[in-house]
Amino acid sequence: MNPKRCAACKYLRRRCPKDCIFSPYFPPNDPAKFACIHRIYGAGNVSKMLQQLPDQTRAEAAESLCFEAKCRVDDPVYGCVGIIHLLQTQIEQTQNQLAKTQAEIAVAQTKLSQTHNSDFM
Amino acid sequence: MNPKRCAACKYLRRRCPKDCIFSPYFPPNDPAKFACIHRIYGAGNVSKMLQQLPDQTRAEAAESLCFEAKCRVDDPVYGCVGIIHLLQTQIEQTQNQLAKTQAEIAVAQTKLSQTHNSDFM
Repeated sequence: MNPKRCAACKYLRRRCPKDCIFSPYFPPNDPAKFACIHRIYGAGNVSKMLQQLPDQTRAEAAESLCFEAKCRVDDPVYGCVGIIHLLQTQIEQTQNQLAKTQAEIAVAQTKLSQTHNSDFM
Repeated sequence: MNPKRCAACKYLRRRCPKDCIFSPYFPPNDPAKFACIHRIYGAGNVSKMLQQLPDQTRAEAAESLCFEAKCRVDDPVYGCVGIIHLLQTQIEQTQNQLAKTQAEIAVAQTKLSQTHNSDFM
């Protein structure tokens, strides 16, 4: 057994080949990372998805797949779509607050200009 | 062949059983919906994820899985994590704009109260 097998090969109980598609993104010291992704997508699908991408984008793809898989494990009904809904609600609230503040400033500025004008009457 | 096979069973070229796990969420008139989810998760994983959920949450889970799968097909590197980043940037921008507007209103109110005070001097 190779003690330097990546987390994916360790999980899949297989030899870690030199050109292992998982090894750069699933280091042996973080076994949970692969377990999550395997549970949601399956090793074959993740390997296929990474292989279809150019080398320099694979690390980011592995990270985003891990994030989505973790979200799906935490929330099996909504996954990270739940986060998207939360953020959309937060944007709506902030935009409403902004509109309210902008209305307030318009009122304050009108009052200010009226006060100035009355100074000259 | 049963012409009323659901989109999943049609895609998988199998008989659509009476208690088909996919059939309520993948109607025969929308074949693309299943194709997308199958490409990203695989039919077995989706079936497993749906089966682990109570009946009344399965429709929402199927929708969110479809949404995530479509995002991953459209953006193979970031999937719907790309949307989350975009929304977070939008929140940040709106919050900055809100802070700026709140500062402006504070200035306007100070000026207004100074003008009122000078009226009494």
